[in-house]
Amino acid sequence: MTLYPLLDTISDPAQVRKLDRRQLPQLADELRAFLVDSVSRTGGHLSSNLGTVELTVALHYVFDTPHDRLVWDVGHQTYAHKALTGRREGMARLRMHGGISGFPKRSESRYDTFGVGHSSTSISAALGMALAAKIRHETRKVVAIIGDGAMSAGQAFEALNNAGVADADMLVVLNDNDMSISPPVGALNRYLARLFSGNTFNAARKAGEKILDFSPSLLEFAKRAEEHVKGMLTPGTLFEELGLNYIGPIDGHDLESLVPTLLNLKNLKGPQFLHVITKKGQGYKLAEVDPILYHGVSKFKPEVGIAGGKPGAKPSYTQVFGDWLCDMAAADPRLVGITPAMREGSGLLRFSECYPDRYYDVGIAEQHAVTFAAGLACEGMRPVLAIYSTFLQRGYDQLVHDVALQNLPVVFALDRGGLVGADGPTHHGAFDVSFLTCIPNMVLMTPSDEDECRKMLTTAYRLDGPSAVRYPRGTGTGATIDKALVGLPLGKGEIRRRGSQVALLAFGSMLTPALEAGEELDATVANMRFVKPIDRELIIALAAEHSLLVSVEENSLIGGAGSEVARVLEDVAGTTRLLRLGIPDRFIEHGDQALLLAEIGLDRDGIVAAVRARQDSGAGAAEEIVAGSI
Amino acid sequence: MTLYPLLDTISDPAQVRKLDRRQLPQLADELRAFLVDSVSRTGGHLSSNLGTVELTVALHYVFDTPHDRLVWDVGHQTYAHKALTGRREGMARLRMHGGISGFPKRSESRYDTFGVGHSSTSISAALGMALAAKIRHETRKVVAIIGDGAMSAGQAFEALNNAGVADADMLVVLNDNDMSISPPVGALNRYLARLFSGNTFNAARKAGEKILDFSPSLLEFAKRAEEHVKGMLTPGTLFEELGLNYIGPIDGHDLESLVPTLLNLKNLKGPQFLHVITKKGQGYKLAEVDPILYHGVSKFKPEVGIAGGKPGAKPSYTQVFGDWLCDMAAADPRLVGITPAMREGSGLLRFSECYPDRYYDVGIAEQHAVTFAAGLACEGMRPVLAIYSTFLQRGYDQLVHDVALQNLPVVFALDRGGLVGADGPTHHGAFDVSFLTCIPNMVLMTPSDEDECRKMLTTAYRLDGPSAVRYPRGTGTGATIDKALVGLPLGKGEIRRRGSQVALLAFGSMLTPALEAGEELDATVANMRFVKPIDRELIIALAAEHSLLVSVEENSLIGGAGSEVARVLEDVAGTTRLLRLGIPDRFIEHGDQALLLAEIGLDRDGIVAAVRARQDSGAGAAEEIVAGSI
Repeated sequence: MTLYPLLDTISDPAQVRKLDRRQLPQLADELRAFLVDSVSRTGGHLSSNLGTVELTVALHYVFDTPHDRLVWDVGHQTYAHKALTGRREGMARLRMHGGISGFPKRSESRYDTFGVGHSSTSISAALGMALAAKIRHETRKVVAIIGDGAMSAGQAFEALNNAGVADADMLVVLNDNDMSISPPVGALNRYLARLFSGNTFNAARKAGEKILDFSPSLLEFAKRAEEHVKGMLTPGTLFEELGLNYIGPIDGHDLESLVPTLLNLKNLKGPQFLHVITKKGQGYKLAEVDPILYHGVSKFKPEVGIAGGKPGAKPSYTQVFGDWLCDMAAADPRLVGITPAMREGSGLLRFSECYPDRYYDVGIAEQHAVTFAAGLACEGMRPVLAIYSTFLQRGYDQLVHDVALQNLPVVFALDRGGLVGADGPTHHGAFDVSFLTCIPNMVLMTPSDEDECRKMLTTAYRLDGPSAVRYPRGTGTGATIDKALVGLPLGKGEIRRRGSQVALLAFGSMLTPALEAGEELDATVANMRFVKPIDRELIIALAAEHSLLVSVEENSLIGGAGSEVARVLEDVAGTTRLLRLGIPDRFIEHGDQALLLAEIGLDRDGIVAAVRARQDSGAGAAEEIVAGSI
Repeated sequence: MTLYPLLDTISDPAQVRKLDRRQLPQLADELRAFLVDSVSRTGGHLSSNLGTVELTVALHYVFDTPHDRLVWDVGHQTYAHKALTGRREGMARLRMHGGISGFPKRSESRYDTFGVGHSSTSISAALGMALAAKIRHETRKVVAIIGDGAMSAGQAFEALNNAGVADADMLVVLNDNDMSISPPVGALNRYLARLFSGNTFNAARKAGEKILDFSPSLLEFAKRAEEHVKGMLTPGTLFEELGLNYIGPIDGHDLESLVPTLLNLKNLKGPQFLHVITKKGQGYKLAEVDPILYHGVSKFKPEVGIAGGKPGAKPSYTQVFGDWLCDMAAADPRLVGITPAMREGSGLLRFSECYPDRYYDVGIAEQHAVTFAAGLACEGMRPVLAIYSTFLQRGYDQLVHDVALQNLPVVFALDRGGLVGADGPTHHGAFDVSFLTCIPNMVLMTPSDEDECRKMLTTAYRLDGPSAVRYPRGTGTGATIDKALVGLPLGKGEIRRRGSQVALLAFGSMLTPALEAGEELDATVANMRFVKPIDRELIIALAAEHSLLVSVEENSLIGGAGSEVARVLEDVAGTTRLLRLGIPDRFIEHGDQALLLAEIGLDRDGIVAAVRARQDSGAGAAEEIVAGSI
């Protein structure tokens, strides 16, 4: 006997569309049960996916996917979509190396119309698709599904600002669950909460019922439903002021509201906006109670829930940062801590509780976060912006133009530098060393263990200009942490092992495998610590004593720390050669961090093999050329 | 006899505050006359500065600057501010090397509270300043002055979204002149136009008069003025929905409206929003009629206006791009042209007229522009995004996450790569080669003349993945342009001069000085054309025949094209050395392009001197080390 009798009959959304509308709630229930079971076995995002089950069913039921385009924002709410579009079996290897992605991905399915991971891109992409259809005279509906958290980002506003005047048949579905990953912030959120009062919400439910009862001709129906819903609820909303036709709010778990409203909207011309209220974790009580805990989960037993933290486990770099932030805030009243909607992920929870007056969650608003920090710094404060490497790409111009150019003391606590694992290529921090090193005035540090991370944060904090401390996702070496707030000498690395012929110049996370490789190779190993300013003296000294220097970093080979080592060597006229090791020039897939690092040669064996290959080929070639030139 | 009797008495805003309020119109008139005269002698921004004269006078009159902070957005409307804050004489050397900047700059004046140049940062910075004052228990007003064009950028929305819920005493002045540099676009602009109807505007004027007539106690006054203005005009605006107290619209050229309204707002607590209507070019008829022509001007005779274009002048790279875009659009119906509010600056005027259905000005919205292009590309279109190098920093995450990761065929026509001259460090395109080369799938080309630029655009357009053609501001060599749409072999450079010992590897704009230096040095000179993929074969061949390779590029030395040359050399075991020439690791000031390039050694003489210095030092050092190691 199957647990999922109806779901088992669905391998394609076309089969969803053949169901009787009254079967849809059962399909949703089975999907939800399947998701809880599946995610409990693989880990992954849970709360957000439980919140979009009915919406996903309704969208595939109403729209002719994949001819009509669904563009999911962020994408960590698309497991139901994946399960309905032929990937239910694939869910068993969700986010595993070689398995399906945790996000929509164009190469994975023709139903994944746009790859996502970062937030707030969906309306822009959907508008592009809708206008392409118009230019090509194709009849096609395009739907962007975006959360209220993602709506707070500037890009979503930029896109709405364009969608509102574009002659494009597109629908924006606002999936309003009153939170991003962190609790909700900002004026837009407060505004949405006002729209969603108990009364209006009930009225919406009734409007849905009425639509079902009347069943008039389609045009009549559409017109009347629109009048009903709009007239009864919200005479003029922010979204209407931006030129979109606003409908809502309606109950996003009620298929009897969702389906008729979407059928109605499908036939309206121009930019439409549907406001849907959902609940993160819907249908799984533990997740409903604590949606943040169940946002991203490891494996767990559904009947028990997530077990408590393991005592004695090594602290993550994120925790090391969070502890340092509280300690430094206690020592210096100028410190201000800022997060763009990543309080938990960036380790600011305790800081936010201890120092609420100096804590700012600005929402998913990286651009604002950086310039806001610059404004604080202009007035003598010492802002610390905690941000994932991959999301700093969103605030790059502000870092250059507002912080670095004005040489302001802003500390970027850059989490998730390097490969992040299961989240994959949208989230790897593979480029920050390259895009930061070229910016004047920046100081860039890469800690090799937790204690060094703390010391580097202190070093950064005491500088009078901008700086970044870039640490990896996860735990470090388990180093003992010195609780004092002491810094490190600026721009100085250290030799950790003395060997001969070869010197490994390790940056940050790569020190551990470099030390292991150094044993095997009897190589000198330096812990470089600083990418910028780089330790020229140390490099020159190592060059004088070794025939091969090897830079090792968890960043793109192109323009990374290795490039700075090369610049130093170019300035001295030696015969020492350089081998750069780092992330190759391609996007790295998702999978276990250690596995990915091994695959691209950034582990002990990979370093040893690369050095030996260079020694073998290099020696011969060098002799040839020397022989030829003499 | 002086032309400016009142203005001559003002060397400091404190003196403005000592004037009788009835003298302010005269001060404004003199300031305006001074600005027309001054800008006609130096060139610079004109239309925007004529639009903010009264607003500037009123702000300095009402607020206690510099204790109260004025944060100007973009900054090309701050000449009156500069003239009132002790820099009137400095205006004679505006935007010249060593003279004052065309934008606010912290190092230039304590009245310049925040350096700007790029748009839409002011509310973020002002919020940071206001919250710093709150944390430090300082009584201080902070005012952000932002244009309606800048308001369309996502960052402004992000900042409003935070300001609306912050307990901060700040004022946002929306300087609504119904345009950014290009004509207005977007739903927000349409919305603002609705707010500003003839009736409401007159009512606002009357409200201002009434405020003056009544003169009640200050609190009464504030409350009553607020009720008047709000009740009469706009019962609920978008800005109020975001939590700001909206007042307006009022006439931004009428000091009798501006001063009392600002006095009122100064005493209100919490986030305030004042909507001011101004006219770009106000008071100089020629600029009023064509504010776009008079946006940024060269020297001109005020009584005649700007003279017509010089016939026979070399076309700028921007024009070469604009012509190519029209020709390629004629050949391929899939082409779509996109600009973020830079139709004129980026050379899209003719395209916009010839192909209105495939032309999109998305407003100052670089993030949206890039993802919008990605959405179009997903559906088989061929988007070409024309964007200044420095502004692409705003869309960097979208380039990585939406375009490059999905390997979509989007062409970035990257204008103003390298030093831009008078606009200075906020606008130099000094980093794009570094931040683009590290991104997988990107192809990056640097044309050395106009014909090559056109061929590279065609090459880029025919690729199935993302690409950028990066060309400098201004004119090129005057090369004859082949009108055919022909491409270049991917990843191939060419040797332009054969010499010995030294090979200069020139990228883009640096080919011309490299060829000149090559004559002096009898050096080989290669036109590298591609930064990525770089021509490995050519580099290896040059390395085999020369003892010194010299990379020359108009981009940061760090992580630029030189770094890619170094990577190739690292892979081959030769004794050839590398010298990288490029923009040094500091922000470059404003001034004439040729002068700046000479200053940093990126001209004929600089290249010659650098090569000779390396040959002198390198030879000796190399011998020493070789001798030591034998």
